[in-house]
Amino acid sequence: MKAEIVAIGSELLLGQSTDTNSVWLSNELASMGIDCYFHTSVGDNKDRMAEVFRSACDRSDYVFCTGGLGPTQDDITRAALAQVMGVELLHDVSVEAMIRAKFAHRQTEMPQNNLLQAQVPAGAKTMDAMPGTAPGLICELPNNTVVYAMPGVPFEMKEMFADSVVEDLLARSGEQQLIGSRVIRTWGQSESKLAEVLDPLVAELDQNSGSFRATLAFLASGVEGLKVRITVKADSDKNLRERLDELEQRVRKELGDTVFGVDEASMESVVLELLEKAGLSLAVAESVTGGYLAGRICSVPGASRSFLGGVVAYEQSIKREILGVSSGVGVSEQTAIEMADGVRTALGASVGLATTGVAGPAELEGNPVGTVWIGIAIEDDSFAKRVTWSKNREQIRNLSTLSALDELRKVLLSKT
Amino acid sequence: MKAEIVAIGSELLLGQSTDTNSVWLSNELASMGIDCYFHTSVGDNKDRMAEVFRSACDRSDYVFCTGGLGPTQDDITRAALAQVMGVELLHDVSVEAMIRAKFAHRQTEMPQNNLLQAQVPAGAKTMDAMPGTAPGLICELPNNTVVYAMPGVPFEMKEMFADSVVEDLLARSGEQQLIGSRVIRTWGQSESKLAEVLDPLVAELDQNSGSFRATLAFLASGVEGLKVRITVKADSDKNLRERLDELEQRVRKELGDTVFGVDEASMESVVLELLEKAGLSLAVAESVTGGYLAGRICSVPGASRSFLGGVVAYEQSIKREILGVSSGVGVSEQTAIEMADGVRTALGASVGLATTGVAGPAELEGNPVGTVWIGIAIEDDSFAKRVTWSKNREQIRNLSTLSALDELRKVLLSKT
Repeated sequence: MKAEIVAIGSELLLGQSTDTNSVWLSNELASMGIDCYFHTSVGDNKDRMAEVFRSACDRSDYVFCTGGLGPTQDDITRAALAQVMGVELLHDVSVEAMIRAKFAHRQTEMPQNNLLQAQVPAGAKTMDAMPGTAPGLICELPNNTVVYAMPGVPFEMKEMFADSVVEDLLARSGEQQLIGSRVIRTWGQSESKLAEVLDPLVAELDQNSGSFRATLAFLASGVEGLKVRITVKADSDKNLRERLDELEQRVRKELGDTVFGVDEASMESVVLELLEKAGLSLAVAESVTGGYLAGRICSVPGASRSFLGGVVAYEQSIKREILGVSSGVGVSEQTAIEMADGVRTALGASVGLATTGVAGPAELEGNPVGTVWIGIAIEDDSFAKRVTWSKNREQIRNLSTLSALDELRKVLLSKT
Repeated sequence: MKAEIVAIGSELLLGQSTDTNSVWLSNELASMGIDCYFHTSVGDNKDRMAEVFRSACDRSDYVFCTGGLGPTQDDITRAALAQVMGVELLHDVSVEAMIRAKFAHRQTEMPQNNLLQAQVPAGAKTMDAMPGTAPGLICELPNNTVVYAMPGVPFEMKEMFADSVVEDLLARSGEQQLIGSRVIRTWGQSESKLAEVLDPLVAELDQNSGSFRATLAFLASGVEGLKVRITVKADSDKNLRERLDELEQRVRKELGDTVFGVDEASMESVVLELLEKAGLSLAVAESVTGGYLAGRICSVPGASRSFLGGVVAYEQSIKREILGVSSGVGVSEQTAIEMADGVRTALGASVGLATTGVAGPAELEGNPVGTVWIGIAIEDDSFAKRVTWSKNREQIRNLSTLSALDELRKVLLSKT
């Protein structure tokens, strides 16, 4: 099964916008075991769009297309598809009714332009999922190539893909199967180490090439950690969930406490949940991360239930005066411990978390760039751990933030 | 002059990596007035790569290609180009010497694999700029289509493009001209307002369609503000610089103090420079931005020369106890002023900058989501300004950070 992805929009060719839709779709196709051989971006020009669809007819079974379904004169994906199919565009009254209903629901008048979105190439199917005012189209081109035309707005495209495209793909493949995936999120091991630890499981899954084949994929995701994606097929929702649960347990058993969450659970949301569950409040003291730790924590809506605040102690005198650090040294185990203790006391929190280190450009007090101490004060205990990075300034600050949260997570887990 | 961009690498088709090279190249081509009609991503497969190059021969004058020039068996751009050119790959001894020199300079041994990078299609030129161990190639395909093959590593590609590709393009176009651009960075006006204010200048430049034509482009750049890019052509470095200087002055005159910097100058680096010049030190107090303000400031190497630190006062008691805020209200003009004053005193700085507001999900104390107060304390003056956003949580936090820095910038400018 050969597939390709086509992104439509002149703004992509002018460099005004980055095509994140094709990246997302590629990930989905990979997880479904569909080979994607080309990405193409083309502008809002009917002839060039038609040329792209025609080459797809020669080389691909499926085309996943985003963009050009809006209500303006620029939006000509419908017309280009009709041209390659050799059919007329017809006005679809049921689509018009759905568009009118969307506007009625928003209590705004429908601009006449939006009627353009009710134009459908003769013989094309419209998708059931319709999160915006643009219907998705399923078109059969010459050589039985199928085009799934979706809007360029990312959330509309994703919803249509998950709800309507996957269903149609499965129906065409004749498989009475469901596909599902789960992302296991980890921090603390390299990608190659994860792959090594999970190698026996990968080999075992590869042997089972029948209809219930499952796969594992590794995705390095920067400040979001390293992800292991489990993808399975099954013949019912129940079996799908059970198989995902079973494989999640297998992966967790191998990876232990490097697993911090599943799917959308971010490191900061997991830490906040653990704090709330334990009835603990948190204060942070930062020098090397300089606000990134507080910044990430506050990105979680409702963070204020457990997070009190923080002190960014960039200048040494602040470590001394606000946090009560006795050591005259900026970067050391002792300083990290005193910062965590100090911020806990100063802000009246039950837990203190601190970072101090060297982000560069130059070494500090004999510590090379990339040396970072993470301090934790909890109950009657306080201690620090050193991490080191061979990275640039921003990476050191970002990865130290993630590691500080991860250290606190592991401590909180051990307390519950 | 028709161009297209080709990105090579199976990781792009698997969604493991986002093709930022094509976005960057598109921007450069647009600024040079070169029309780019297609982007294509293709995997590390010789036949499919050759197919992409062959279609380019039918439709484009220039192909800007990135990736597949590395030293491993996967790196087959050289071979695919040779196939389409109908020539052999030859070992180029001068390229080998350059690669060996790179390793000698690093004092490491050259792996035998790297000799692959000395293979050049017969008749292709190698580019003079060679920041890594992969030489860039200039290949003439059938129909006089020219391919510029560059490495996929972004900094290598950018350096080669700026140093060797632009020169070759100009030589081929027969123009004895240089092209240069300058980015004027602004904050505080909408994109449409900027376009309206600069409309007469744009119209004037459009009339001059001769060889010294200059253009303006508007680029919305999120937390980096709104950019106005000036691009000019000239027959000498001196004339290029003079024309850019002249147009920068024209743009600055129209836009006034919404211009905060030029080219790589970020808002935070500009504010730090102004502080240092005035001999002032800064402390910040944040609630709605929750660490983002300190985080951005600390991203500038050497920030510690003017930045002392900050307090993230997420919980109201911290506003009261650490910052000495008397008001019991979390979000108000008075609170913002007292936070700025309080952090200045607590941290012993000469300037205090504060943010307090509502990032959502719910309104607070009767203030709707998106209400933000920015407080400034400087010399014997302290005051606050309100901004409002119809945006989501992260956008409110990010744009408030930018606006807080911008308010301080304008105050610092008025003092000097």
